[in-house]
Amino acid sequence: MELELPPSLGVYGNEKIAKDILSRIWGKRGVFTCTVANTRTSTIPGVSDAGDTPELTMFTPAADAEILISGKVSCMKGIPINPGGIPTPATLTKAALELSSMPYYIVNGGCEVIPYVPYFDMGGECGEKIITGKSVKNVRTEYEKGYMLGEMLARAYDFVVISESVAGGTTTALAVLMAMGVLKENLVSSSSPNNPKELKSKLVSEALKAAGIEPGELKDDPLRAIECVGDPMMPANIGILCGAAKSVPVIVGGGTQMAAVMAGAVALHPELVGNFFQGTTRWLMNDPNSSMSRIMDCISDSIPIVYVNVDYGSSPYEGLQAYEWGFIKEGVGCGGASVGAIIESAGRITHEDLEAKVHEIYKGIMGF
Amino acid sequence: MELELPPSLGVYGNEKIAKDILSRIWGKRGVFTCTVANTRTSTIPGVSDAGDTPELTMFTPAADAEILISGKVSCMKGIPINPGGIPTPATLTKAALELSSMPYYIVNGGCEVIPYVPYFDMGGECGEKIITGKSVKNVRTEYEKGYMLGEMLARAYDFVVISESVAGGTTTALAVLMAMGVLKENLVSSSSPNNPKELKSKLVSEALKAAGIEPGELKDDPLRAIECVGDPMMPANIGILCGAAKSVPVIVGGGTQMAAVMAGAVALHPELVGNFFQGTTRWLMNDPNSSMSRIMDCISDSIPIVYVNVDYGSSPYEGLQAYEWGFIKEGVGCGGASVGAIIESAGRITHEDLEAKVHEIYKGIMGF
Repeated sequence: MELELPPSLGVYGNEKIAKDILSRIWGKRGVFTCTVANTRTSTIPGVSDAGDTPELTMFTPAADAEILISGKVSCMKGIPINPGGIPTPATLTKAALELSSMPYYIVNGGCEVIPYVPYFDMGGECGEKIITGKSVKNVRTEYEKGYMLGEMLARAYDFVVISESVAGGTTTALAVLMAMGVLKENLVSSSSPNNPKELKSKLVSEALKAAGIEPGELKDDPLRAIECVGDPMMPANIGILCGAAKSVPVIVGGGTQMAAVMAGAVALHPELVGNFFQGTTRWLMNDPNSSMSRIMDCISDSIPIVYVNVDYGSSPYEGLQAYEWGFIKEGVGCGGASVGAIIESAGRITHEDLEAKVHEIYKGIMGF
Repeated sequence: MELELPPSLGVYGNEKIAKDILSRIWGKRGVFTCTVANTRTSTIPGVSDAGDTPELTMFTPAADAEILISGKVSCMKGIPINPGGIPTPATLTKAALELSSMPYYIVNGGCEVIPYVPYFDMGGECGEKIITGKSVKNVRTEYEKGYMLGEMLARAYDFVVISESVAGGTTTALAVLMAMGVLKENLVSSSSPNNPKELKSKLVSEALKAAGIEPGELKDDPLRAIECVGDPMMPANIGILCGAAKSVPVIVGGGTQMAAVMAGAVALHPELVGNFFQGTTRWLMNDPNSSMSRIMDCISDSIPIVYVNVDYGSSPYEGLQAYEWGFIKEGVGCGGASVGAIIESAGRITHEDLEAKVHEIYKGIMGF
């Protein structure tokens, strides 16, 4: 009997594969992970809006981890906001995790600002600016430990969700995708409706030059591409994806940032295609200034995108309504956690439940 | 209907509480953790046999973690052995974990030699020799992160197993138990039938003096006792125990080393008594040179000890038969993992299954 998708979920891409995977995990047990990491690329003015100022972007990943695990931030004052004051999507991730039974773990891909939570250490370090051409240390270690972690999680769960919180991560993703030749133009997103595309393209161009790489030269060597111009979340997440998807389906939670992770996994383990899909939000799919679907078309025709139809249009809070105007859109695995929660509850959890829960959490976090 | 204990399990102490807890978790889902840590105390000649030489004892915890997670050791040549050549009890732990469905995670309490595995980082550091009187840094951090981890694990599982691999840990346990006044004499065990009791007692006496503590002075302050004369596994495991036992039963896997963990938890959260028991081996309970039961009598009359009746008497290998002669006895949570496996399988797994599996693993690890 074919699975019927609830209205809270939409699918882009290979529907047959999507439904196959979904039916295998519908109502089953999942685990959520979020890999947090820093790249100094985010401190370049104009690159990242995932923080009130360029300097504060370095605190966002740790703060997001603290919100998820302990409900309060200790590494900085307040909570991560974009320059306009819109709060981090960790609020939506937290709502999904609280509604669902999924356990959730933080993975430290390489942080300068360390979250005050227990996290899986992957042997990574903070990433350097991509314009150095020498961005990430310990890539192979992170990949191998990620692989072990993926295997461990797959042993215990029916599906695994991976995700990220890395300010500046769409820029590093663009750089890695261009080094691999997966992208030939800048299609990545931004947490702002004013996506600083030219700046990102220019930085990526400088980065590839500094690394001595021609675009497309590293088609088969994603780990080297990451080492040169990526960020430390990537090798850990590629590892987890590959180690887990050997045995159980994986939901790749995130937006254009996770495209580099998926492209890397496809290059290293093409046999895994068909056992993972991307889990994201309606806002990302509707982004007029980027194209996750076009990026995906460049990676594979067999990785579906499953998105949650969450809608903040009726929200009394501007900081949430702003998502409808193109701000934020994704992050901290909010799409993947939402999709995972819906799947694990066999559709009992709806986007309305998520919206209600987000408002409860948002009020609490903002002190309303 | 009262639960009937299978022959593979025995109980010491409060049988009523033991059966209450067992019936609540019988056939349910558990998770196994092992907290590895270093204390330079283990390098004092004569203190620890958990390694071929005093220096090699620093590698044992990391190697044990690698055996559990990846089946092979990378931090040293060969596998941890005692000076007589008897291999680490990680072989028994691994057997139990492979037979059961329990997921298993390594926690890094504070290692000098770091295992090449993904582990939960607790913010700890390698412990100093107890005779400095300033043994452990970041105690409160480790406790708090342990507490968060305990809560996270309890969310996802019906019971949680904690355990340790810390060479020199019976000496640090004795020191903490004397600082807290729980013990007034040396009752701790050793991995050798020749338990270096006098040496340990002398070191503990020096340690308390260096810390400026009278025996019994820190009855209500286990964390300070650990900071002065403990090891970095302790605050992490006390945290996990307290964070988890709030919601689900906990099996405290280990021998006399874990006595300090239990005593610490009882001092900080006496209300949790009744929701955890010790999980260990028949060898530890039969040790003529120590007395886990007498130590437990000093901690509480409401923490039962459940032990696995595993027997290597018919083993063709001396390195396993030696357990029957008083060597090793416990470690790396082999008792807790075995008890957990039996519980999770509702008694389907027996001590004979464990013995058979250990021999398979032992052959593989030793290259027979």
